[in-house]
Amino acid sequence: MDIAQLGDKILTGDRRALARAITLVESGRADHRAQATALLEQLSSARRQAMRIGLSGTPGVGKSTFIEAFGMHLVGQGLRVAVLAVDPSSSRSGGSILGDKTRMERLSRERNAFIRPSPSQTHLGGVARRTREAVALCEAAGFDVVLIETVGVGQSETVVAEMSDLFLLLLAPAGGDELQGVKRGIMEMADLILVNKADGDLKPAATRTCADYAGALRLLRKRPQDPKEFPKAMMVSALQEDGLVTAWDEMQALINWRKENGFWEATRANQARYWFDQEVRQALLARLDAPEARAMMDSLSSNVADGAMSPSAAADQMLRGHLKV
Amino acid sequence: MDIAQLGDKILTGDRRALARAITLVESGRADHRAQATALLEQLSSARRQAMRIGLSGTPGVGKSTFIEAFGMHLVGQGLRVAVLAVDPSSSRSGGSILGDKTRMERLSRERNAFIRPSPSQTHLGGVARRTREAVALCEAAGFDVVLIETVGVGQSETVVAEMSDLFLLLLAPAGGDELQGVKRGIMEMADLILVNKADGDLKPAATRTCADYAGALRLLRKRPQDPKEFPKAMMVSALQEDGLVTAWDEMQALINWRKENGFWEATRANQARYWFDQEVRQALLARLDAPEARAMMDSLSSNVADGAMSPSAAADQMLRGHLKV
Repeated sequence: MDIAQLGDKILTGDRRALARAITLVESGRADHRAQATALLEQLSSARRQAMRIGLSGTPGVGKSTFIEAFGMHLVGQGLRVAVLAVDPSSSRSGGSILGDKTRMERLSRERNAFIRPSPSQTHLGGVARRTREAVALCEAAGFDVVLIETVGVGQSETVVAEMSDLFLLLLAPAGGDELQGVKRGIMEMADLILVNKADGDLKPAATRTCADYAGALRLLRKRPQDPKEFPKAMMVSALQEDGLVTAWDEMQALINWRKENGFWEATRANQARYWFDQEVRQALLARLDAPEARAMMDSLSSNVADGAMSPSAAADQMLRGHLKV
Repeated sequence: MDIAQLGDKILTGDRRALARAITLVESGRADHRAQATALLEQLSSARRQAMRIGLSGTPGVGKSTFIEAFGMHLVGQGLRVAVLAVDPSSSRSGGSILGDKTRMERLSRERNAFIRPSPSQTHLGGVARRTREAVALCEAAGFDVVLIETVGVGQSETVVAEMSDLFLLLLAPAGGDELQGVKRGIMEMADLILVNKADGDLKPAATRTCADYAGALRLLRKRPQDPKEFPKAMMVSALQEDGLVTAWDEMQALINWRKENGFWEATRANQARYWFDQEVRQALLARLDAPEARAMMDSLSSNVADGAMSPSAAADQMLRGHLKV
């Protein structure tokens, strides 16, 4: 593969080239890895940046309907929209989110939209790097908005929040006592809570749920990167395409405030630091996956299980003897 | 310090020697570390084993009152009881759990009891090793039961469960809708749920809470290491010393069943493997704490934050250049 040529095509916004490049960054092969690094290096000089929007919501809240309707609204404004998914569980559950493009039938037919399902890979570290690099590729390809979708599995919200400029939490109407169902940690990441399905019979429940979450958000500690009214909760109906214009206005207002007050840049810098740190840690730990290291670990582990060695003594031997720390 | 002599004293059950040895394993100094390893090596040949009971409960459930009453009951049976605490937050909150021995006034005066507060150390990895080694020291000193207490901060329950033969969850009576307050992951670790304060006005609420949790436990997936009736929920009143005899009978029955069916031994072997793995990982990552490595990380991190390097490229440089992976 001619990497320079691929890079040039991506810079012209070629969707097929973009798809090929994402496949490249998803590959575990060492030569692909080197090519991916070279490609990203080439593209970074273009310094193109999109609005990165993280979106979390458990199955059933209407995430695909929302992304389709919201994406169509953005495309209607003349914007180019990419949708990526982070789903570390996808290889286990057999199907991946966004795996079925028919879930977003209209959006997937748009010239100015690009939808990419989650790769089937269980390792969250690998998924994180792949997604981060896919976001960079989408930015280089000139997309204005990159939506990064996740179902709330384990740490995946943190992964998505750490690569987003803005984090949305999509909820369905519910009884007031279900407030506790959303983990506090996820609430604390949200810039905007959208209570979806605010239509028909569910409207009163959505109103109540929205008020409950608005109250809960007021109880959270204020973050410096939030203007006065944020984080906030509001209602939308993806089905009836209600509230989407307002939601997009709110997102733009928030991002503009953050840009004007230096938080946008600072957050991106902190995120880059975070990912550097994570990559170093993961690569260090990956030394334990080498065949020789695994064999030594297995053998020492058996001694430890038998009681012939203490965990500490065995760890010492592994580190001093084999890994030469 | 004469380590061989210290070891001999511990084997006679000398509590002052035990306290000194725990201070030794808590030390971060390299020479102390080497002495601690030698001491543990010496003591391991005695192959003494206690019943290790993990105990979790949030502040307010009456944990100290329970430990005092339960400990006094065990001592009354002629057993020797050690109490250790895991509280990774203790240095942050300023005070440590068990820091005030007056919380367990009667038990702390008993010749056959040994109470040790949590060291003030934030790093959970360090706290875990210290506690694991303190447990081994208490076993060598001939204690029959080692109670390992934790407030549910972050991952501390997992740490305690991974070094216990039996895991108790202590709860206070509450309304039925507070069931969700206990994280599912912690429920899944529990062998026995004890609803405390089943006395006076709170008795009806305790009865209801106990029934709620018994129901919730039945919904959990059965683990191979559980006999038919376990995990179970029961009521106690530490204040009135009610139910403690039954609770102890249940614990003994469970442990005996596990011993007879090979699960006790298998669990200890798995725990040893787990701790070996954890120690290797922590030691690998500790390479990043060396002054030179820190300086290199800081410098690369600045480049990454400025956008001059991608996180991946900087990580490559750190690993190939400095850490020589």
